[in-house]
Amino acid sequence: MIIVTKSGTTDEALDAIREAVERTGLATHLSRGEQRTIIGCIGDERLLNAASLGALPGVESVIPILKPYRQVSKGFRATHTVVEVGGSERARFGDSTVVVAAGPRSVEGREMLLRTARSTRDGGAAVLRGGAFKPRSSPYAFQGLGVEALEFLAEARAETGLPVVTEVMDTRQVETVAEYADMLQVGARNMQNYPLLSAVGEVRRPVLLKRGLSATIEELLLAAEYIVAQGNDQVVLCERGIRTFERATRNTFDVAAVPVLKRETHLPVIVDPSHAGGRADLVAPLAFAAIAAGADGLIVEVHPAPASARSDGDQSLDFEAFGTLMARLAPFAGAAGRTMGTLQEVPA
Amino acid sequence: MIIVTKSGTTDEALDAIREAVERTGLATHLSRGEQRTIIGCIGDERLLNAASLGALPGVESVIPILKPYRQVSKGFRATHTVVEVGGSERARFGDSTVVVAAGPRSVEGREMLLRTARSTRDGGAAVLRGGAFKPRSSPYAFQGLGVEALEFLAEARAETGLPVVTEVMDTRQVETVAEYADMLQVGARNMQNYPLLSAVGEVRRPVLLKRGLSATIEELLLAAEYIVAQGNDQVVLCERGIRTFERATRNTFDVAAVPVLKRETHLPVIVDPSHAGGRADLVAPLAFAAIAAGADGLIVEVHPAPASARSDGDQSLDFEAFGTLMARLAPFAGAAGRTMGTLQEVPA
Amino acid sequence: MIIVTKSGTTDEALDAIREAVERTGLATHLSRGEQRTIIGCIGDERLLNAASLGALPGVESVIPILKPYRQVSKGFRATHTVVEVGGSERARFGDSTVVVAAGPRSVEGREMLLRTARSTRDGGAAVLRGGAFKPRSSPYAFQGLGVEALEFLAEARAETGLPVVTEVMDTRQVETVAEYADMLQVGARNMQNYPLLSAVGEVRRPVLLKRGLSATIEELLLAAEYIVAQGNDQVVLCERGIRTFERATRNTFDVAAVPVLKRETHLPVIVDPSHAGGRADLVAPLAFAAIAAGADGLIVEVHPAPASARSDGDQSLDFEAFGTLMARLAPFAGAAGRTMGTLQEVPA
Amino acid sequence: MIIVTKSGTTDEALDAIREAVERTGLATHLSRGEQRTIIGCIGDERLLNAASLGALPGVESVIPILKPYRQVSKGFRATHTVVEVGGSERARFGDSTVVVAAGPRSVEGREMLLRTARSTRDGGAAVLRGGAFKPRSSPYAFQGLGVEALEFLAEARAETGLPVVTEVMDTRQVETVAEYADMLQVGARNMQNYPLLSAVGEVRRPVLLKRGLSATIEELLLAAEYIVAQGNDQVVLCERGIRTFERATRNTFDVAAVPVLKRETHLPVIVDPSHAGGRADLVAPLAFAAIAAGADGLIVEVHPAPASARSDGDQSLDFEAFGTLMARLAPFAGAAGRTMGTLQEVPA
Repeated sequence: MIIVTKSGTTDEALDAIREAVERTGLATHLSRGEQRTIIGCIGDERLLNAASLGALPGVESVIPILKPYRQVSKGFRATHTVVEVGGSERARFGDSTVVVAAGPRSVEGREMLLRTARSTRDGGAAVLRGGAFKPRSSPYAFQGLGVEALEFLAEARAETGLPVVTEVMDTRQVETVAEYADMLQVGARNMQNYPLLSAVGEVRRPVLLKRGLSATIEELLLAAEYIVAQGNDQVVLCERGIRTFERATRNTFDVAAVPVLKRETHLPVIVDPSHAGGRADLVAPLAFAAIAAGADGLIVEVHPAPASARSDGDQSLDFEAFGTLMARLAPFAGAAGRTMGTLQEVPA
Repeated sequence: MIIVTKSGTTDEALDAIREAVERTGLATHLSRGEQRTIIGCIGDERLLNAASLGALPGVESVIPILKPYRQVSKGFRATHTVVEVGGSERARFGDSTVVVAAGPRSVEGREMLLRTARSTRDGGAAVLRGGAFKPRSSPYAFQGLGVEALEFLAEARAETGLPVVTEVMDTRQVETVAEYADMLQVGARNMQNYPLLSAVGEVRRPVLLKRGLSATIEELLLAAEYIVAQGNDQVVLCERGIRTFERATRNTFDVAAVPVLKRETHLPVIVDPSHAGGRADLVAPLAFAAIAAGADGLIVEVHPAPASARSDGDQSLDFEAFGTLMARLAPFAGAAGRTMGTLQEVPA
Repeated sequence: MIIVTKSGTTDEALDAIREAVERTGLATHLSRGEQRTIIGCIGDERLLNAASLGALPGVESVIPILKPYRQVSKGFRATHTVVEVGGSERARFGDSTVVVAAGPRSVEGREMLLRTARSTRDGGAAVLRGGAFKPRSSPYAFQGLGVEALEFLAEARAETGLPVVTEVMDTRQVETVAEYADMLQVGARNMQNYPLLSAVGEVRRPVLLKRGLSATIEELLLAAEYIVAQGNDQVVLCERGIRTFERATRNTFDVAAVPVLKRETHLPVIVDPSHAGGRADLVAPLAFAAIAAGADGLIVEVHPAPASARSDGDQSLDFEAFGTLMARLAPFAGAAGRTMGTLQEVPA
Repeated sequence: MIIVTKSGTTDEALDAIREAVERTGLATHLSRGEQRTIIGCIGDERLLNAASLGALPGVESVIPILKPYRQVSKGFRATHTVVEVGGSERARFGDSTVVVAAGPRSVEGREMLLRTARSTRDGGAAVLRGGAFKPRSSPYAFQGLGVEALEFLAEARAETGLPVVTEVMDTRQVETVAEYADMLQVGARNMQNYPLLSAVGEVRRPVLLKRGLSATIEELLLAAEYIVAQGNDQVVLCERGIRTFERATRNTFDVAAVPVLKRETHLPVIVDPSHAGGRADLVAPLAFAAIAAGADGLIVEVHPAPASARSDGDQSLDFEAFGTLMARLAPFAGAAGRTMGTLQEVPA
């Protein structure tokens, strides 16, 4: 950490600042420039409360040098983390393949789910997604079928072999959802719901962590750190668009987050092109861009009849469009030095 | 709701769109322009799933006409809602006074809290704020003293008479926090934590609901609607800065949200100038601006020694600065046609 | 400037970085921390090209310490700059008064301008605003009356005594506009039009410089530095709302920019509440907030009949609303320790 | 255009609104819903001043239906516009190839430019870029070599055959720059510099128009419309990153703008991955993403020695990195159904 002092700061004030730092066990190192004196703080800067040091007389700014996350950073682990999802057959996020999770935004019924699961499996999906508990901005909107949907998801898995990922929104639901699902999703709106992050860190299920609408990449990594710090390092990160001034798309897909994350962390990184653009006609180009930029996979909304979906059908693909997407995706995966990921049987 | 169709949409496609709308019980009304045909949907548009209609062939855009919130809107209640907080003495948000809640960001100990409570009460604060459970972006940062802090808050109330507001972050904590506190705060990061909103809607305690970092004003009102829809209409809204590209301030204080909210809703609206600017030297000017724009009150961070605060001391006022703020605030309240609010004894 | 190196940077790489810095005439100062080595650069860091140093092997980040602007900063001049606008009678921006410029967005004709000038002068305005050349996002929209409008403005000044401010958009127009107007406005879209900034820096007319839609406060100050660096230090800064995700208002009024600018620069700072909110009903509350936050004045759109205005009538006040605004403004000016500014005769 | 009225609007007010619309020559069409009456305006809504209608009593909102741009829209021209740049050899933007423009951000000297031109031509670039006049946020930063740089560019073209694109910032420079350059670039900061747009619309040179930092896609298309409306339809659009809250990258690359633009307009669309990320290590992944999303080309910064560049070397590639980029790009172009574009001799 570096403390920049105001011009004209007295030696007394400088001493007070150094003392405040040294009280925490760090050493200080003074560097007098022509216009500013700079105090370097040597040691584990995470022990310091940067924002409060800013309240000391003479301090102009406090600049952290180290990244605030540890266990999720590249430096902490030399190899890529591969996150395995499923039981006797498994999807593997983070190896050299492109893994696609697909399914309906909300599980609206047993039949529609089974049909979608079969069709997406045939199309090449390796994970089944489907919302049982849905975060909706209006209290009057459809909130999901709840536990009933979890049962349908389990049935669809039994039939198709696809492992299941579904969202959990409430600390009180974590155990129940973990009983049914192979992977727990923490949605964008809950990316900084710290009790929930801790709770999913305590179960032995992989976690799909979506970036918040206005979360920086650093905050996404800190959210992952919450989960890993509880002992669960099976975390897949997901870029799904951020909120900006542009309204031609529902969100702004921050494709650069993919290579930035791949440089910062050993965790797998996937993309949700359905939410990122919010328009069915953009799912394919954004999916291609994601894979070209180095993403480890995708999560895509598929619905048997988007126009009658109970929420946001305009960003869902129908079965045919999903099939076309998968066929066109393969050459991009190839250009990126990858193959399309499939389910892999686990040796007994 | 209005559906705009693409130019060249066939009559068949138009019929299919009308049928989709009419199946939900609404009537339709066709208006053929020179370049576009427009379908007006007459009836309760909340029954329609706008986003899914967008997936129908020929639909260019779907434009909602009605506000998606009901009970919090001006049309729902003719008078301003006044939210009373406290027991035998009460603070009243939403009448003609300016109510100030003050106290430390985090309760760091018994002594510091009691000193702060006494000093802010003397300065004119009518509510004591203090964090027991703290949302922190890093899992390694101080997370609050928890239940112990709740006990200190209760003790400070007993001594000073100030009602207490404190944040609740987890559905599992709602009951406990409601036992100790007079008002439950839902923080910015949890503004779209729907299970939490529902949970605080079920207890009989007023709620202080903070705007999310990237939440629109409409989404803030929908979040309030979640609480009110559970039967708890004692909600105070709080603007606390939004996230933008500007970095001179921690957040961008959206002062226009105050008059916009006052026009849209009958609920009281206050401002948090400490978070909005993130700098102690900005608390006073932002507080003045808030009151000038029509806010019903403020929530301000005060700490006995900001430079040694365990979090974000750089945005906290010390006792002297808080006293100065309150003295300078009164003329602005006067210019806005208000008086400074004080605790009011409740007739036995 | 501070250069933070990557962990594991070799001594050779460190030497190369130091050499690159020292070649420019600055001294370096090494500070070895536990995980990172930091290189302090001592001397005038503006000689260094920070972004290019970032391309050297081993460099993790380059952190500037000094502000990039000089002549507009508080340190450069001990007193507030007072900008005088007008001839025999003058408005003074930057003293203890609140100066209000008012008039139509576009000069649509002689009669409407004269009526507006008389009415706003009666209401207490001290400067007449009116667009002759209008930046419009569509090439098909009304672009202003041009030189004819400049003549109407000169006539209105002759009759009312109000000095005139009007926008200049093209380097080729600067001389012409400077012949007619008392103050040249550089609009938000041209805040980083550097040839235009230089051109208005070369004429002897005060300049009203509006903040760009996505300009940081630092960039606004750098834009002012362009003008001042040409020898024209008569610059008034204007906050007029920035672009964010929020759509309830046309822009987001960054009221905190006012106190931040007042701390950073000796130049006067005013606010445009018409553009900031983009809604007539928000002009008054935003104007009050601006003055409460410490603004030196306002620029307000007034039109005889807003609903028939040729552009953006929905953010214009009619004469009556302007009168009411001015009457209600005075107590806020008083609370801020100011009086309402009026035209002052210049001693012969 | 649709006008939504407030609930409880009187018939008198409705009539006044209809009259205001009909005065402009449009027809109106009333649609009474349960809670709101809606007025459809039939005819060329560009004749209406939407914002001013909003000032009429009873109007809640005014919703445009038609796109505000015409000549740049898909509907205006059935085929893709192919923009040819150069003399006896030409680059063609907008056909089935991927065209890459490359070169230094600023022309810093004759030698460095010639070396870069040769190397990028060998690497497969089809256009030479290089700044002669540079927009810089600080008046003290290097502003480019001006006309001398234009001469170096012409020399580099003569030697390598590469057509030249360079930025023009000032209406007074347009003619001079057009004498030397094959294509005129309008930079992001000047995207809404309307006199400049008109000026480049009047010369017979293709234009490279970059998206402004906070410009919506619609505003970019309107800026192009300014140029085309002057008779110059040889416009290439360029996405180069927008300004958001994220700071891990210099800008946020809005990759979705590529497919959105390709659906809206017949003009070619390219991407600047150097500015979009602002980091050399991101140029390749963002370039791949751009081509995967459907871009017609790239503009890339290349410098012989990025660390000693006079501006922003940290986002420039050296010759080797550029060669690697081009080699890796080809398979992505192939996956997108394209080939890499090369210079094509023009039949005499």
